[in-house]
Amino acid sequence: MRKKHAPDIVVGRLPLYLRMLNQLAAEGRSTTNSQELGRRLGISAAQIRKDLSYFGGFGKYGSGYDVIYLRDQLRRILHLQRSWPVVLVGAGDLGHALANYHGFANNGFDIVGIFDNDDKKIGTIIGRHEVQDVALLEKSIKETGVQIAILAVPASSAQDVADKLVDAGVRGILCYAPVILQVPPEVKVQYIDPVARLQHMVFYVGEDS
Amino acid sequence: MRKKHAPDIVVGRLPLYLRMLNQLAAEGRSTTNSQELGRRLGISAAQIRKDLSYFGGFGKYGSGYDVIYLRDQLRRILHLQRSWPVVLVGAGDLGHALANYHGFANNGFDIVGIFDNDDKKIGTIIGRHEVQDVALLEKSIKETGVQIAILAVPASSAQDVADKLVDAGVRGILCYAPVILQVPPEVKVQYIDPVARLQHMVFYVGEDS
Repeated sequence: MRKKHAPDIVVGRLPLYLRMLNQLAAEGRSTTNSQELGRRLGISAAQIRKDLSYFGGFGKYGSGYDVIYLRDQLRRILHLQRSWPVVLVGAGDLGHALANYHGFANNGFDIVGIFDNDDKKIGTIIGRHEVQDVALLEKSIKETGVQIAILAVPASSAQDVADKLVDAGVRGILCYAPVILQVPPEVKVQYIDPVARLQHMVFYVGEDS
Repeated sequence: MRKKHAPDIVVGRLPLYLRMLNQLAAEGRSTTNSQELGRRLGISAAQIRKDLSYFGGFGKYGSGYDVIYLRDQLRRILHLQRSWPVVLVGAGDLGHALANYHGFANNGFDIVGIFDNDDKKIGTIIGRHEVQDVALLEKSIKETGVQIAILAVPASSAQDVADKLVDAGVRGILCYAPVILQVPPEVKVQYIDPVARLQHMVFYVGEDS
């Protein structure tokens, strides 16, 4: 399969293309092209054509892309035609915000359980869920077969929780804690790190100040 | 200056190196090397040496890097020796979580004002701040000279708020809304997009399921 060969950085841009195609579809547009996608995303048209070429030919020469067709193909490539159950660990301020964020469910990521280790939080209701004792986390994951977890715990407990998640069978972790997790190579970790993004930004802003 | 030539993707890895050096310093370590950094970060040692070489020579051949020296040099390169005032727009669940997150202040990003357009939120206290009317946003930015903003508003109002921020002089925007902002080229935008990170992850997880 050709997609096996796509570099990770290319895979990381597919969600961006998908988002833009969703936006174009919402605007009622039926066709687009690499020039328009590039202009709106701040990426070169050549880069977009090269990225997509890893996965097949999606446009007719000179006539661009069919918005709905390309969107559906990207969804298929990214394995988004099914919905993905997700466990959320951490019911603090961030956990609350994540549990109440509709963007996950709207994009096929359904939070099916929320866990915390704080007696004051266990048993409280967030959105549709009752916060469960983190002691039940592994049992719950093994019973339900959930493969994806969102980690919204303090840095000090992130690795411990990650170890439990991996032991229970989780294959992908979205980590909000400011740490670098040590996990087996078959487990995928993505980090949400606003401080790193701000630091990246001020490299340029500070240059011109 | 050599750093002008570093590709953006290299600049984006510097905060990761900085985080690891902070972690090593906290562990009491005085020296490290590209092999160790690479192993702990999941990046090749050669990549780390190449990335750092854009900014100077930081190690002696064969003896590795001095942790504190390299950390301080990275802080200087990223313009983190000063602290950066930041405005936060959006006082919903996410805004609350961000306002209460100590990681910003601990890394030199001080939230100096919180704004919202909801009468029920204006005047309430979050952390050390009283939520202000977003109508005062431009005036406040112009008076204080703040250059960095965090955007935690719904997608539907993100572009409008971004336009106001840019007009008022903001040079960098950390955007939590699931949109692609249109801004002038001199304004830097970084996106926090957990859905895109989950989609990136399930490309691999779905492959093996």
